[in-house]
Amino acid sequence: MSETKALASWIIASQLEDIPDDVRREALRAIVNYTGCALGGSPDPAVNIAMCAFAPFFGPPAARILGRAERVDALHASLMNGISSHVYDYDDTTPKNYIHPSSPVASALFAYASANKVSGRDFVHAFILGFEAESRIGNSVYPAHYDVGWHITGTAGVFGAAVAIGKLIGLSEQQMIWAIGLAATQAAGLREMFGSMAKSLHPGRAAQNGYASALLAQAGFTSGVHGLEGPRGFAAVQAAKYDLSKITAGLGVDFDLRANTYKPFPCGIVNHPAIDGAIQIHNQNKSAPESIRAVRLRVAPLVLDLCNQQNITRGLQGKFSVYHGAAIGLVRGKAGIREYTDEAVNDPAIKRVRESATAVGDPTLTEDQANIEVELVSGEKISRFVEQSLGNIHRPLTDRQLDEKFRDQAIMALPAEQVERVIQLCWRIDQLADVGELVQQACAS
Amino acid sequence: MSETKALASWIIASQLEDIPDDVRREALRAIVNYTGCALGGSPDPAVNIAMCAFAPFFGPPAARILGRAERVDALHASLMNGISSHVYDYDDTTPKNYIHPSSPVASALFAYASANKVSGRDFVHAFILGFEAESRIGNSVYPAHYDVGWHITGTAGVFGAAVAIGKLIGLSEQQMIWAIGLAATQAAGLREMFGSMAKSLHPGRAAQNGYASALLAQAGFTSGVHGLEGPRGFAAVQAAKYDLSKITAGLGVDFDLRANTYKPFPCGIVNHPAIDGAIQIHNQNKSAPESIRAVRLRVAPLVLDLCNQQNITRGLQGKFSVYHGAAIGLVRGKAGIREYTDEAVNDPAIKRVRESATAVGDPTLTEDQANIEVELVSGEKISRFVEQSLGNIHRPLTDRQLDEKFRDQAIMALPAEQVERVIQLCWRIDQLADVGELVQQACAS
Repeated sequence: MSETKALASWIIASQLEDIPDDVRREALRAIVNYTGCALGGSPDPAVNIAMCAFAPFFGPPAARILGRAERVDALHASLMNGISSHVYDYDDTTPKNYIHPSSPVASALFAYASANKVSGRDFVHAFILGFEAESRIGNSVYPAHYDVGWHITGTAGVFGAAVAIGKLIGLSEQQMIWAIGLAATQAAGLREMFGSMAKSLHPGRAAQNGYASALLAQAGFTSGVHGLEGPRGFAAVQAAKYDLSKITAGLGVDFDLRANTYKPFPCGIVNHPAIDGAIQIHNQNKSAPESIRAVRLRVAPLVLDLCNQQNITRGLQGKFSVYHGAAIGLVRGKAGIREYTDEAVNDPAIKRVRESATAVGDPTLTEDQANIEVELVSGEKISRFVEQSLGNIHRPLTDRQLDEKFRDQAIMALPAEQVERVIQLCWRIDQLADVGELVQQACAS
Repeated sequence: MSETKALASWIIASQLEDIPDDVRREALRAIVNYTGCALGGSPDPAVNIAMCAFAPFFGPPAARILGRAERVDALHASLMNGISSHVYDYDDTTPKNYIHPSSPVASALFAYASANKVSGRDFVHAFILGFEAESRIGNSVYPAHYDVGWHITGTAGVFGAAVAIGKLIGLSEQQMIWAIGLAATQAAGLREMFGSMAKSLHPGRAAQNGYASALLAQAGFTSGVHGLEGPRGFAAVQAAKYDLSKITAGLGVDFDLRANTYKPFPCGIVNHPAIDGAIQIHNQNKSAPESIRAVRLRVAPLVLDLCNQQNITRGLQGKFSVYHGAAIGLVRGKAGIREYTDEAVNDPAIKRVRESATAVGDPTLTEDQANIEVELVSGEKISRFVEQSLGNIHRPLTDRQLDEKFRDQAIMALPAEQVERVIQLCWRIDQLADVGELVQQACAS
């Protein structure tokens, strides 16, 4: 059986009761984390600009955008949710394939649930299936696909949204095969866009186009039936090397939600060990920024591949600068949303420390590790080796840390008491008769 | 200067007066051909299905779809125009890169012009620039990009639409660079979809997403500034081998519109020489179908690889039968849309002649050549050698042949007298004060 058909068949047949309890529990954590990110990003200029650009094209106002007051159609709501939830690069990551998996899936699902009645059970079930399909398809083409320059959150994400919405609207197996094919032929997003607003467009378009793929398939719009494995299908075209067996091996038994991680810092995850080490040095040594003469980083080679920008002026660029990450950790002892603003990037103390930093790639280090050495003006040297970065699979954020992260972000969009109500609703989303109740609370008035 | 910046700079600065007369003239021919295709495809099931799927999401009805009565927003109109104009695979082709170039560009432009006042001069100018940008970007990655499985009409097409709309709405150079970047990061479409409705979705999404890229850029949505040439930009990610110099060499002097070709027959291009020869025999000899005893074809071997079906019952199969092509040419003296219906394939006279035909592959023939010999009941033999197939770059369709092709298609969407008015308006589109006048005539009431 082809991988496309096998995957479609599994999704169609899946029952929530078949999903292991720990996976269902992790889905709640992913949804809490996602919702906080979507709320935090919702007033961002990228969302405001996209709203302005598309306002003349909005359909009937049946749907809501998390964190915002406007009413739009559900496809545009998917797009906006996708942009807002990724714009701070603060959403979840599966380290085995570097996908930010929840954003494309949950962005489409929340848009759908804002316009259509969906039970919490069905919502969580569709979320788990979309997440799993997306991550498995990503696994099948990783790393060649990512290495050549695809932003895998966009390319794999469109499948996740298509499958999740397709499950909710009850596609047949044939329709699900078409939905996967239509997703395959819209899979897009280039890493060249990192550092610009276009990066967050990727999960937005993935959510919107995946949602649209499910609608088209439902209406009978045909696609090739070998979207994933065909000789000119997704894997063959978008990856020099791929392993399609990763799509189907252990399907229904192994779940990538178990490997999901939540970022403690709103920037590229490969920067996290360096930031973590810098904060540890800050907390223990409390050295004044002026006392720092030089910073020397040893990091996994991929870090320099992704985050080697040093001469930067904008907050967004800071997310792709391991030097900036080390500097804010050392100077401010934290790396929150406010450390990735234009103001922070141009803060003279941070700028000076950032520009004093050097980094070398060390192939003996994993991407969860970093070594940071700070040389003070006094000549003293302080160093820290981070063996497992905070937020990784071995040092996961606790539920309470997720709540804190949620509050830090959501407060940018909603009043504090409303934030608390949304947190509560997210943790029991699987028990809601109508997820619209949550969406209602999670929108600005 | 980077290719992205050079291209953006040229587009911004271009004046219609800078475009050579022969290129402006060929643009009219391309627009005539495009419009006929869009009208002919407009009642197709693929368009009907897409209309149903997206109807709940249509924005305010400011725009029109060529050939149809519904009013939708301009982005959805772009999508529908793109699907309809490509659904019969009858639109234009630049043989040097296999792009169907007009569809993505004109689909967006006509949607825009249906909702906004645009002079014919500006429309044609934007069309030429969009066509040129799209084709040059395609050249830079062809053939590796196409060979691996990209449907280049989708991937290159999104740039054409972005540039054309961007020119019309007056983007600055910086905004045009962003529009190109936003197009790059949405470039998609797999050849695996060939043979399904999803193939025609590609120019539709290219038109819609290109249009959206220009709108986003205008509103200030940023992208990477090296969308084409960056190490993780379009060329590097989507082609194993590429030559970026093809984007800028001879810019403003060499125009790919000069290499554009228009299909005379709505079927696989390898059948064209045999059909061409059969029509020539029909026109000169006017033999009644009953007088034909046998038909003998000599064709390039590839023709029999692709189009060797003889025992057929459905219109779609006719497109892959060189025997059917010869039979309709001999019996009806034409090979239009109506010669590829189920009715035509089962027409007893056509069926008998088709089944009287034999074909041999001859490696000395090019794919533009065929020899056809007809043996009459009287014993007389008539033969014809086609050295250059009608419609190729050496034997382009005349303006009158384009008119005939237009009528053959447009009559499926509009009354005959309206068809004539639209033809007239298309040929003088560059003189219209408002292209909306043409669109109004080209829509069903």
